[in-house]
Amino acid sequence: MSIKISFIGAGSVRYTVKLVGDLAKTKELNGSLISFIDIDEERLNAVDNLAKRYTEEIGGNLKFEKTTNREESLKDADFVINTALYRAPGHEDGYVSYEIMRNVAEKYGYYRGIDSQEFNMVSDYYTFTNYNHMKLSLDIAKSIEKICPNAWLIQTANPVFEITQLIKRLTNVKVVGFCHGVGGVHEVLKTLGLEEKETDWQVAGVNHGIWLNRFLYKDEDGYQILDKWIEEESNNWEPKDPWDTHLAPAVIDMYKFYGLLPIGDTTRNSTWKHHHSLQAKKKWYGKFGAIDNEVERPKFYEELRQIKRLIIQVSKDPSIKITEYWPEEFPKEKMSGEQQVPFINALTNDVEARLFLNVLNNGTIKNIPNDVVVEVPIKVNKNGIFPEKIQPDLPEKIKNYYIIPRITRMEMALEAFITGDRNILEEVLVRDPRTKNYDDIPKLWDEIFDLPFNKEMKEHYRS
Amino acid sequence: MSIKISFIGAGSVRYTVKLVGDLAKTKELNGSLISFIDIDEERLNAVDNLAKRYTEEIGGNLKFEKTTNREESLKDADFVINTALYRAPGHEDGYVSYEIMRNVAEKYGYYRGIDSQEFNMVSDYYTFTNYNHMKLSLDIAKSIEKICPNAWLIQTANPVFEITQLIKRLTNVKVVGFCHGVGGVHEVLKTLGLEEKETDWQVAGVNHGIWLNRFLYKDEDGYQILDKWIEEESNNWEPKDPWDTHLAPAVIDMYKFYGLLPIGDTTRNSTWKHHHSLQAKKKWYGKFGAIDNEVERPKFYEELRQIKRLIIQVSKDPSIKITEYWPEEFPKEKMSGEQQVPFINALTNDVEARLFLNVLNNGTIKNIPNDVVVEVPIKVNKNGIFPEKIQPDLPEKIKNYYIIPRITRMEMALEAFITGDRNILEEVLVRDPRTKNYDDIPKLWDEIFDLPFNKEMKEHYRS
Repeated sequence: MSIKISFIGAGSVRYTVKLVGDLAKTKELNGSLISFIDIDEERLNAVDNLAKRYTEEIGGNLKFEKTTNREESLKDADFVINTALYRAPGHEDGYVSYEIMRNVAEKYGYYRGIDSQEFNMVSDYYTFTNYNHMKLSLDIAKSIEKICPNAWLIQTANPVFEITQLIKRLTNVKVVGFCHGVGGVHEVLKTLGLEEKETDWQVAGVNHGIWLNRFLYKDEDGYQILDKWIEEESNNWEPKDPWDTHLAPAVIDMYKFYGLLPIGDTTRNSTWKHHHSLQAKKKWYGKFGAIDNEVERPKFYEELRQIKRLIIQVSKDPSIKITEYWPEEFPKEKMSGEQQVPFINALTNDVEARLFLNVLNNGTIKNIPNDVVVEVPIKVNKNGIFPEKIQPDLPEKIKNYYIIPRITRMEMALEAFITGDRNILEEVLVRDPRTKNYDDIPKLWDEIFDLPFNKEMKEHYRS
Repeated sequence: MSIKISFIGAGSVRYTVKLVGDLAKTKELNGSLISFIDIDEERLNAVDNLAKRYTEEIGGNLKFEKTTNREESLKDADFVINTALYRAPGHEDGYVSYEIMRNVAEKYGYYRGIDSQEFNMVSDYYTFTNYNHMKLSLDIAKSIEKICPNAWLIQTANPVFEITQLIKRLTNVKVVGFCHGVGGVHEVLKTLGLEEKETDWQVAGVNHGIWLNRFLYKDEDGYQILDKWIEEESNNWEPKDPWDTHLAPAVIDMYKFYGLLPIGDTTRNSTWKHHHSLQAKKKWYGKFGAIDNEVERPKFYEELRQIKRLIIQVSKDPSIKITEYWPEEFPKEKMSGEQQVPFINALTNDVEARLFLNVLNNGTIKNIPNDVVVEVPIKVNKNGIFPEKIQPDLPEKIKNYYIIPRITRMEMALEAFITGDRNILEEVLVRDPRTKNYDDIPKLWDEIFDLPFNKEMKEHYRS
C-alpha cells in the first residue's frame, strides 16, 4: 500500500537518507510519497537529491516532495518521522547552543552541564535547558493534531522520554517514541558468543533506562553465561570505540547492584560514581571514558559536522554512486536496523514486527504509573500496537531505585516546561550533588536565560 | 473498662510517667493494669515508683507491675506502647552509639552523619546505621505476635516510618505509628493569632513529611492569612528555642516551592540547601540553626541526661510531690496532648477521637502505593480506625518530589535491613551529595561495622 510519510527535520541528512533506503527496500511500500521538510534549504536540497539517488541506485520506487512549510508537508501524511532538533539562528547545528550552555554551567562547577544528572549522563539528552527544543517538538505535534490528526508521530529526536510524554499529555496525537539503544542487546550477545536466533530476550524500562529482564539461551539461563564471562573474561575487556560500553566495568557494577544488565544508552546512564570526572569515566568505561566527556564528545560533534559538509558536497556531484562511496552507511540490500520503517510497514501492510517502543505504560510494567511512557517490547501489526507481557517482571530494586527517580526527573522537566515555574529549574540544582554554592543557582539560570537564543525561554520563566 | 497496657522501654522515664498520667486521668480506664518492662532495673524501679506516686497524687486508680522479662509483661496485654531505643552495653543511653557513628562519618566528610540525608535532616531519626535498633524493634513485634497477637502495638520510638513499615511487612501485628509532630499545627495557629476551634484543618503525608493540605478559618482560606503574615510579619520572626522552627525562613521557602505548609518535624526535613552547614542552618532557621546541629543537639542530649539523673534521684526521695516539683511536666489535671491514651480509650471505651497516625495507605492518599505507611487523620472508636478522606488532595508536586523520594529511601533502608545486602548501604552514599571520594564508601562502612557494638550488624552485612 502506498502512503505518505513526512520527515520533519529531514535535514539531518544522513539519518533521513538511511530511513529512505529502508523505505525503498520495503517492497510493500512501493509508490509511497516521501515528503521532506526542513527550514534549511541547502540541507533540504541535499537530502532530496541523495534520497532520490539512493532510491534509484537500489531500484526502489518512491515519490518525493520537499518544502520548508511544515503544514504543507503534513497534509494527508500517514506517518510523520520527527528527527528535528531545535537550531538557533546563525548556529551550524542544534548542538551549538547546548555547548554554549554547557560552558556556562561548567563555570559554576557543573561538569558536563546542568542537564547531566544522576540517571541522565547521556550528554546530548537535554532535559532542562532545552526549552526551545521542547517548544518546537510540541509545536510540531500540535500541527499534526490540526493537519493530519490520524497520522502516527514517530518521535525520534531526543529526549525521547520527555518529548513523547509531553506530547501524550498535551495533545491527542498518536505519538510513539523511537530509540535504537535496544540494539545493545546484539552487542552483548556477540561478545558472549551467543546466537541471536537461539536467544529468548526481553528488555523493559524507560527510554535510556532499559534492562534485560529476560535472557534465555537455548532454554538455559543466559545470566549464568554472562556470570561466567564476567569471571573469566571481563578483565580483558577493552572498548573498541567511545560508544562501546555494553560490558564496561560500570555496566558490571550496575548489574551487580541492580541484578539485571542495563542495555544500550542505559549503560552510560548510571551514577555519579562512574561519571564525576574524566578520570572516573576512564576507570569505569575504559580508555576513552565513553562518549560523554570533554575529549570524545567534541570530537564526535566535529565528525558529524564534517560528514554533514561532505554529504552536502556529494549531493552536488551527481557522478558519485553513494552505495559505492558509502557502502556501510548506505548499503544496497541490508536494512539499517532502525525500527521506524518496520513499524510503518507493520501498521500499513500487516507485516508483523516485534519492536521496542516508547508508549504509555497502561499496566505493562507493574507498579509503574499507567500514564507514564515506558520502553517495552511491542508486537505491531495492522490492528495496532500490542505490548508483550513483561516476564519476568523487573525487580523492585530497578523500579524503586532507578526508574521511579528517573520518572521524578521527567515530571520536574515537564512541570517546569508546562508551567514556566523557574523554582523547579532551581530545585533541580538544589538536588544536584555538584552544587557548591546554593546562592549561585539563580545566577546560573539568569546567565542561561540571558543568552541571545534563550529570549523566549527567559520570557516563559519570568517569575 | 480495665485493660492491660505494657510499656516496653519504660525506662525512658519522663515520657512513660507522662503517659501514665494520661491513663490515670482517663476515668474510663480505671483499674487498668500497667506493666513496665525495661532491661535497666534502676530505671525500671524509678519509673514504677514515680508512676505510682503521680497516679496517687492525682487520685487515679491504676494497678502496676514491673519486669525485666519482655514475654512476661506481654502476657494478656491489650496494648503495647513501645518507646524502646536500642542501647549498647555500657552506654548511658541509646544516643551514645549514634554519636560515635556520627563522628566516624564526619571524619569522611558527612556533616551530621550518614543517616542525615535529603528529606531526612532530623538528626535523631536514624535509618541506615540503626541495625541494632531495627532488630530490637522487630524482635519486640515478634514477641507480641507470639504472646499477645491481638494487642495493638503503639510504635512510638523513631524512626516511626521505617519501623512501622518493617513490622507491617514482616509480621501480622496490629501496629500503628505515633508521632506528636502534628502538634506543630497549634504553634502555627498561635503565631497567626487563629483560634483552633474556628479552624478546619487536615495534614497528610508520611512521618516527618506531613503537609497542611486543608486550612480553613471561619470558612475562609487560611493560606491567605498565612500569606499576609509572611508579607507583613515573617521578617520579624525569631525562634524562641532550637525546636521552634514552625515558621522559619526555611519553612516559608518550602511553602513557596511545594505550595503547602510543612508541619512539625517536616519543617526540618527539607533539603541540603538549608542544612549543609551550621551557617546555612542559622540562615534558614534563625539564631540556633534549629536543633540538628553540632551545638544544640549535644546540649539537648546533655539536658536529657541530666533530667534522667534527676528523675532517678527524685524517685528515691518519697518526700517530694512530683506534681508540685514539676507542675508543667506532670500537671494535676491537664492531659499531656500525646495521642497514645486517647487512642487506647477510643478503641476500648468508644470515646471517639480524631488522631494523626501512621497506618497503611490503602488508597487514603491517591497515587501513593497502598502498602506504604502514611501519616493521616484518623477517626478512632470501638469499631476500629477509619482514615478521613484527604481533601483537598496533596499536590502532585509534594507527592512526586518529596514523598516518593522519601519512600524510596525507606525502601532502601528496609531492603538493606531485611536482606543484609551491604551494596544498598553503599549505594545510599553513592547518592549522597556530600560524597567526595567514592572509594571511601566501603571503608566508612567497614569502620562502622567494626565498632564493638555493631558486631551483629557486621555479621548481618557480611558480603
